[in-house]
Amino acid sequence: MAKSINGLISAIEWRSGELALLDQRRLPHHIEWVTLKSVRAVAKAIRDMVVRGAPAIGITAAYGVVLAAQQRFEQSTSDWRLAIEADLEVLAASRPTAVNLFWAIERMRQKISTLEGEPAPLLLEEVLKEAKAIHAEDIAANQLMGRFGAEMIDEPCAVLTHCNAGALATGGYGTALGVIRSGFAAGRINHVYADETRPWLQGARLTAWEMVKEGIPVTLQVEGAAATLMQQQKIKWVIVGSDRIAANGDVANKIGTYSLAVLARHHGVKFMVVAPSSTIDMAIECGEQIPIEARPASEVLEIGGQPISPEGAGAWNPSFDVTPAALVDAIVTERGVVESPSLEKMMDLMR
Amino acid sequence: MAKSINGLISAIEWRSGELALLDQRRLPHHIEWVTLKSVRAVAKAIRDMVVRGAPAIGITAAYGVVLAAQQRFEQSTSDWRLAIEADLEVLAASRPTAVNLFWAIERMRQKISTLEGEPAPLLLEEVLKEAKAIHAEDIAANQLMGRFGAEMIDEPCAVLTHCNAGALATGGYGTALGVIRSGFAAGRINHVYADETRPWLQGARLTAWEMVKEGIPVTLQVEGAAATLMQQQKIKWVIVGSDRIAANGDVANKIGTYSLAVLARHHGVKFMVVAPSSTIDMAIECGEQIPIEARPASEVLEIGGQPISPEGAGAWNPSFDVTPAALVDAIVTERGVVESPSLEKMMDLMR
Repeated sequence: MAKSINGLISAIEWRSGELALLDQRRLPHHIEWVTLKSVRAVAKAIRDMVVRGAPAIGITAAYGVVLAAQQRFEQSTSDWRLAIEADLEVLAASRPTAVNLFWAIERMRQKISTLEGEPAPLLLEEVLKEAKAIHAEDIAANQLMGRFGAEMIDEPCAVLTHCNAGALATGGYGTALGVIRSGFAAGRINHVYADETRPWLQGARLTAWEMVKEGIPVTLQVEGAAATLMQQQKIKWVIVGSDRIAANGDVANKIGTYSLAVLARHHGVKFMVVAPSSTIDMAIECGEQIPIEARPASEVLEIGGQPISPEGAGAWNPSFDVTPAALVDAIVTERGVVESPSLEKMMDLMR
Repeated sequence: MAKSINGLISAIEWRSGELALLDQRRLPHHIEWVTLKSVRAVAKAIRDMVVRGAPAIGITAAYGVVLAAQQRFEQSTSDWRLAIEADLEVLAASRPTAVNLFWAIERMRQKISTLEGEPAPLLLEEVLKEAKAIHAEDIAANQLMGRFGAEMIDEPCAVLTHCNAGALATGGYGTALGVIRSGFAAGRINHVYADETRPWLQGARLTAWEMVKEGIPVTLQVEGAAATLMQQQKIKWVIVGSDRIAANGDVANKIGTYSLAVLARHHGVKFMVVAPSSTIDMAIECGEQIPIEARPASEVLEIGGQPISPEGAGAWNPSFDVTPAALVDAIVTERGVVESPSLEKMMDLMR
């Protein structure tokens, strides 16, 4: 089983000098932990999607920096701060879209820069402490967002979510699924519809698994059926996470999210984005500037390693899309909720 | 290889007293023909999706009636017209949404009712001739629609299609893919984007296969990426088939079609439905009255027989959805094109 911290599903654990990740490519039918001992192994695990989800990637990278510090410190107690820069670059190159990755690396870099002159063991302890703080703060933020988001839902209803923005995508509890957990506990959400979320099937594999584990009623459907769910007035809210939010409130998230936002607006369904403030990138003016990762065509052309399409067919596989702020009813963060986001409101939030 | 009639891909063949179907569940990696000798086997093949696509289902059912006539005539040369009614009911119960099935059965029933008093061998020959006529007329209709639809496309562009409304879904040539074939030949269409079309992957398996065979450039994407295709202005038209069109112009088609219609309208992309007049059901006032087949949850919960979701998760699997006429720019039939469809215009077309 996935281990839990304070009763929560957790997919990231620091285990006496090593980082353990629950291999999310193998869920829900195989519970396998991968143990990582080097920063390069951490970067590879992020790239290969052993771990995924913007906040979870950030936390994993923070622990990756701890492994880098240990390694570099062993090699040279004097030059390690300089040597570690190369490791941070390798980590930063693992995936381009989720800004939490860069945010966590930067926060760890800052911490290391303040450690000048401490005695050696204390120094590495401080680096680890910072990573653990990032992890713990993410869980606390999720719980707060869960409450904020649930409070926005007026009457008991069913909701739709996309991909997995749950405990597995974060330090624990989840962003979108955090709101769904809190909303279910508060009697405001009574049913979850989950897009299966091709090509990686995070909805079918991960969101369904989290919901079933907690006894929250969950129904899967193919992405193509989401519009009919709305046409038949089966849901009141779409609730999703985010990989990066621009200063104007434009939202990058898993491919398929933008489609739901357009459909939601057409049907009078509300659209909620749930993300910690570490997902907000005030250096990016608008969504068009967010780098969107293009993943291999094989993810679309094959399922489970088996080709589903004929030789000669190409595939287009952007991993994320951008939803303009105008289609977003609320961005829920641990700092508070921004309704109908704009640059001004986002600046207020981040001040 | 799939056999061809007049150089076209064909998946339905009458072979001296038996019906041969190209097993579409096995494409594109396995070319397997199934030979059917009884009407019950035909009904099962339709239900199990050996053959799919509204016009193809109609043609298959027509040949199924021929098999029924042969069988019943052998049993009793006097009572066969009465006895065959039970077979027609079995055929009609195979799938509920595609109206071409009922249309073809009814046309065969009418034909049989005119055969009173003919000499025996001639009688069965006449039944087979009617089925072959339905088949040939469908191909001719497709070619005409291909021309009509292609003429609506002003300048060379890329288009998006959903599911498979190709040669495999018809007697040959295709409805939506017929327009794409004609449009490509005329230099009006230069690229096809194909939704992979979960859960059956008709886009990835069948549409891509047809396009590759003819050298028409095809790119697959997951359904969730269609909105981004439009956001990035990569396509000018969405072109789809239909399983049933109501008298007011509402269109039932593969689940995911309605989503594309909403997205197309939002992005100023045109939306074309291509279907023979046998798909139009003037007895159905509007889309809400069209029976929508709910297929097994296992089609969503499993891929290739392997579970992708955890035990305890449910799935909602409507096979079709309804696009309101208001979102349809053109319905292309062999009788002509109806722009911005309405009851009045549909009545004019069908008069």
